[in-house]
Amino acid sequence: MARSTASAPVSVPLEESKAAYLALKAKNLSLDLTRGKPSPEQLDLSAALLDLDLSGSFTSADGVDTRNYGGTDGLVELRTIYSELLGIPVPQLLALGNASLAVMHDVVVHALLHGVPGNTVPWHNEQIAFICPSPGYDRHFAITEALGIRNIRVPYLPDGSLDLAAIATHLQDPDVRGMWLVPMYANPTGATVTLEEAEQLMSLPAAAPDFRIFWDNAYAVHHLSDDEPGALDVLGLAAAAGHPDRPLVFASTSKVTFAGAGVSFFGASTANIAWYRTHAAVQTIGPDKVNQLRHARFLQSADGVRAHMRKHRELLAPKFAMVEQILASRLTGHARWTQPLGGYFVTLTAPRGTATRAVDLAKAAGIAVTPAGAAFPYGDDPDDAVIRIAPSFPSLDELEAAISGLCDCVLLAEAEAAVEAAAEAAGEH
Amino acid sequence: MARSTASAPVSVPLEESKAAYLALKAKNLSLDLTRGKPSPEQLDLSAALLDLDLSGSFTSADGVDTRNYGGTDGLVELRTIYSELLGIPVPQLLALGNASLAVMHDVVVHALLHGVPGNTVPWHNEQIAFICPSPGYDRHFAITEALGIRNIRVPYLPDGSLDLAAIATHLQDPDVRGMWLVPMYANPTGATVTLEEAEQLMSLPAAAPDFRIFWDNAYAVHHLSDDEPGALDVLGLAAAAGHPDRPLVFASTSKVTFAGAGVSFFGASTANIAWYRTHAAVQTIGPDKVNQLRHARFLQSADGVRAHMRKHRELLAPKFAMVEQILASRLTGHARWTQPLGGYFVTLTAPRGTATRAVDLAKAAGIAVTPAGAAFPYGDDPDDAVIRIAPSFPSLDELEAAISGLCDCVLLAEAEAAVEAAAEAAGEH
Repeated sequence: MARSTASAPVSVPLEESKAAYLALKAKNLSLDLTRGKPSPEQLDLSAALLDLDLSGSFTSADGVDTRNYGGTDGLVELRTIYSELLGIPVPQLLALGNASLAVMHDVVVHALLHGVPGNTVPWHNEQIAFICPSPGYDRHFAITEALGIRNIRVPYLPDGSLDLAAIATHLQDPDVRGMWLVPMYANPTGATVTLEEAEQLMSLPAAAPDFRIFWDNAYAVHHLSDDEPGALDVLGLAAAAGHPDRPLVFASTSKVTFAGAGVSFFGASTANIAWYRTHAAVQTIGPDKVNQLRHARFLQSADGVRAHMRKHRELLAPKFAMVEQILASRLTGHARWTQPLGGYFVTLTAPRGTATRAVDLAKAAGIAVTPAGAAFPYGDDPDDAVIRIAPSFPSLDELEAAISGLCDCVLLAEAEAAVEAAAEAAGEH
Repeated sequence: MARSTASAPVSVPLEESKAAYLALKAKNLSLDLTRGKPSPEQLDLSAALLDLDLSGSFTSADGVDTRNYGGTDGLVELRTIYSELLGIPVPQLLALGNASLAVMHDVVVHALLHGVPGNTVPWHNEQIAFICPSPGYDRHFAITEALGIRNIRVPYLPDGSLDLAAIATHLQDPDVRGMWLVPMYANPTGATVTLEEAEQLMSLPAAAPDFRIFWDNAYAVHHLSDDEPGALDVLGLAAAAGHPDRPLVFASTSKVTFAGAGVSFFGASTANIAWYRTHAAVQTIGPDKVNQLRHARFLQSADGVRAHMRKHRELLAPKFAMVEQILASRLTGHARWTQPLGGYFVTLTAPRGTATRAVDLAKAAGIAVTPAGAAFPYGDDPDDAVIRIAPSFPSLDELEAAISGLCDCVLLAEAEAAVEAAAEAAGEH
């Protein structure tokens, strides 16, 4: 991930900003930058998945009738495809239901009620905490918050990398049992964990023997450039570091095929997989194998997935380029932002104390942006600076209008804050 | 449900039974009566569901792109179909994932962690118990057992009806928070709750204000005779009785379309639905709407479901008739069994103390039967008498061989027990 250099903000004069904002409002826009949703054109890439005829051939590679009960691990042909993409051996990789978020939630619930390998004391019996690199994925933080687990905000470093020193310190606390992490093209910063960072994450001493990293590789194959790094062998790194049970790997096809109608994956050590199987066997008779068969037939192979993702990139890359171009032309010297090499988000860091106002201004002008603070535990961005931009869903024209309008809002919020600061300074004299 | 009259067993001579069993073993059978799985021919009835082309029309009735995120309640057109079948208003009926068992599990988990409307003390904080009419569905009992809830065995009365007096007594215990129930064509007894029984179940005073009945209407449309009773308006009965939040209704298309690849439903009071939504919103972004759209297009209407179920009946009824015919000709005077008017199971009640032996004999002869006791909490059938027969999956020829062979095993086990009892009686003199 690269970031534009931050400059000390020199605000546009207030009247000029106000005029621009009034002109924006007059456009009566209705645009949405809130969620990382694929666009209709991206979904069209998987049209063949909607039309596959399976009635002549509904049997899996290992001879299972996908129309009937059975097979809690998921179809082996689909696990094989994602085994290559995620670098996880097939026996340690399950293909599950339509939502990896639900698998993460359920893993936390199973741990709360039963404990995990390495410590069978139910987490529910203790006051536990999760490390939350921030800004991060709001739905991660919502799971632990809703389940009564304390979320610990650990800001990314100014260069966008993980604050491993802070994480190491928190790991000395035996209450710390988990950590949320999107290791590639993170939501929303775009940060990607390097091999060295991953080695450290797997090696760091932890006071809790059952510390787990929820390694949500949601964007493992979602590249935006010619550089297409493979997934790190995080299970291998963890085993080599003597902590084989530390990482829990999640992924899904939600942004490969259909959002919320795809297949999720769960990969982990043999002990963790056995543990998960035990509890999942009580919860369900198994995942939807028909949908898994459709996905295996449609995607065909790991190379099939890679080729398919390049088509997504063709649709997404121009949107990210447009965001970059507009932000650079309008906000250089006023804000900084990420230039992600993959994933679904741009993080815009507005002048300190202005994000809430800018988002409110945008909303009033018909541009829906994720609430300021949403990417932080408990919705609390201490700098009130981070704005998450999701460029994928709008058309290029809509995106241009929305980002340009958002820039008007950021500049007005900045100008207002500058005037306010000047007035305060004057008042102090 | 009707039952054959039980007679005092008069066992076949041991040598004769042994000879029959040896002849059975010599056939080297490999047959399976264990699970209530649809047969391939039943699954073929939904072949069109595998071949639907959706790419030209993937939008739901209310304009949602089913390929994208959103819509936690499920597709309104599918909820409308099941609203009519289950007698539940659409706003109180959600269409969810591929497994109603998972919804039941998750409802128990949410209650354990958060409490329920009427009592927000998490169930996990107390020693709670569920009433388990027995024999019942082993996977129900497995959920509560795995989650640390005490299962209370409440035997059905000799005529196959619920023991409402015993249930009323248990409800005086404030630890009793739940009850498992399959109200139509129960697994495995075939019993159907009458209107009068339902009224009592909804009216009975309960010490716990948050007592819930898990009303698993898995076989609501799975009739085996011309009599096609509709689902009872259990939510209406509960509201009329002043306990609107008592019933939680579950159903699925697993034995309508594809087992484990269908759609589940959850119906309840407005308060319970709001409660469920709150917790489900943390767990998942929503169910697989593409599969729901496929189901709505394929099933079309409540009448479409009814017509489809009559095709299932055409395939299933001859199997149940064959089981009845063989049991009547071979076991009259030795055992009793149910004659269900719907659902998936026949319950065979062998002479007291012989079920385990009969099932073991069957297994050794290549006939897999659900382990004796499996239909009871903790696998404990105090009479060691109940054998669950699932006739749906085998072909008619296989079924004939399997049931006939099972009769050989029941008769041998009975004869062995009689000889043993005679020896004991002789020893006592």
